[in-house]
Amino acid sequence: MNGHLYILGMGPGDPELVTRKSERILRQTVVYAYFAKKGEVGHARKIADDMLSSQHQELRFEYPITTEIPHQSNEYKEALALFYDQSAKIIEQHLQDGQDVALLCEGDPLLYGSAMYILERLQPNYLTHIVPGITAMSGCWSAAQLPIVKYEQTLTVLPATLPLEELVTKLRLCNAAVIMKIGRNLSKVKQALQSAGLLDKAIYIERGTQTEEKMVPLTQFKDSKAPYFSLILIAGL
Amino acid sequence: MNGHLYILGMGPGDPELVTRKSERILRQTVVYAYFAKKGEVGHARKIADDMLSSQHQELRFEYPITTEIPHQSNEYKEALALFYDQSAKIIEQHLQDGQDVALLCEGDPLLYGSAMYILERLQPNYLTHIVPGITAMSGCWSAAQLPIVKYEQTLTVLPATLPLEELVTKLRLCNAAVIMKIGRNLSKVKQALQSAGLLDKAIYIERGTQTEEKMVPLTQFKDSKAPYFSLILIAGL
Repeated sequence: MNGHLYILGMGPGDPELVTRKSERILRQTVVYAYFAKKGEVGHARKIADDMLSSQHQELRFEYPITTEIPHQSNEYKEALALFYDQSAKIIEQHLQDGQDVALLCEGDPLLYGSAMYILERLQPNYLTHIVPGITAMSGCWSAAQLPIVKYEQTLTVLPATLPLEELVTKLRLCNAAVIMKIGRNLSKVKQALQSAGLLDKAIYIERGTQTEEKMVPLTQFKDSKAPYFSLILIAGL
Repeated sequence: MNGHLYILGMGPGDPELVTRKSERILRQTVVYAYFAKKGEVGHARKIADDMLSSQHQELRFEYPITTEIPHQSNEYKEALALFYDQSAKIIEQHLQDGQDVALLCEGDPLLYGSAMYILERLQPNYLTHIVPGITAMSGCWSAAQLPIVKYEQTLTVLPATLPLEELVTKLRLCNAAVIMKIGRNLSKVKQALQSAGLLDKAIYIERGTQTEEKMVPLTQFKDSKAPYFSLILIAGL
């Protein structure tokens, strides 16, 4: 009998924002896996800290270093595909040995999460289960106590990596928006919000729900670059 | 010293999808409140069942019966505003007595949730805290094991109550979509999806994460009306 793969949403950062279900499954599953950048603990791994015991066995998957390669290039896509192939293969060996594996994911696994690339590789041949997680955006609008959408309003979730014109078009058509993956795209995003008439409503949040949380109106955020764990909220109001 | 108001996301239905934080606060807080339709247990109340003890004190707020009143009318808006005023007043009395109150909310409190109307009334004068919850949409795409957005894709969350033309325009501009509040708008939504070329990708989910969960491709769902707890997912793929 093959083991089952459990893909566990671990929420945005505060370990208390893990669901009872993810906690139970993690405590019951000996082998757990997670993705991390080289030299970093790994966000999902950090959230799981108080739920792990000496009985647990860790599979750590370190992203290949791709900072030098343009993210639109085939070379980048191939490097990542190979990485996911190898990671899935290691998980598969445990499943074939009859061991369940819990793959830990920050936020919600199927909203821009790396876990989906493991899912698509193993779903055809193994029993897979997904436990949703609190998204970074929910964590942030809750921390900001900002009702994000009401009544007949539309919410759009946009990656900041989109071209300027596309950002503007989409921002003009929604009532509320969440802009993810800010990083180096900060000045473009500010310009897009200005063009769409939304700059004054934008709230910048960094490391939402974590102890280092930072939250300011975007117009007051003067850095030229934002860290990976940041997003911008525009509430419908 | 006034009590604090805790607005607790209780997730989409499965009691195990409650976060550790909502569970802890609910267990520690004597007075809890929730909204429910007349004659129904109340969805958030039902989810909380195993976390309540005989020490707890319940505040049940029953929505006024407004089925006869058009939802766009002032009469409807006034009836609801009065209801939220009265509910907030009752919570306020407990806060003024120095008692904390936990307001239970299905899904995530600030994503189309009624709790935001209590928040806006009490936020100015009391200490308020929001605990995010797993959204119905996360619960549904996890149950369906459907990666909803990846890479540079855009996700739009739309209420089915929007006019047909607006639905079509917005659907054409996103990669992935979640359509909420289906109910009597089902045939309009199907038409909009058809016009936007997305009908074949649409998945219909009813009572996601609950024991009565139902999930089918929308083209196979032949009823003319959908229940309140239903939504439609279109994954970016």
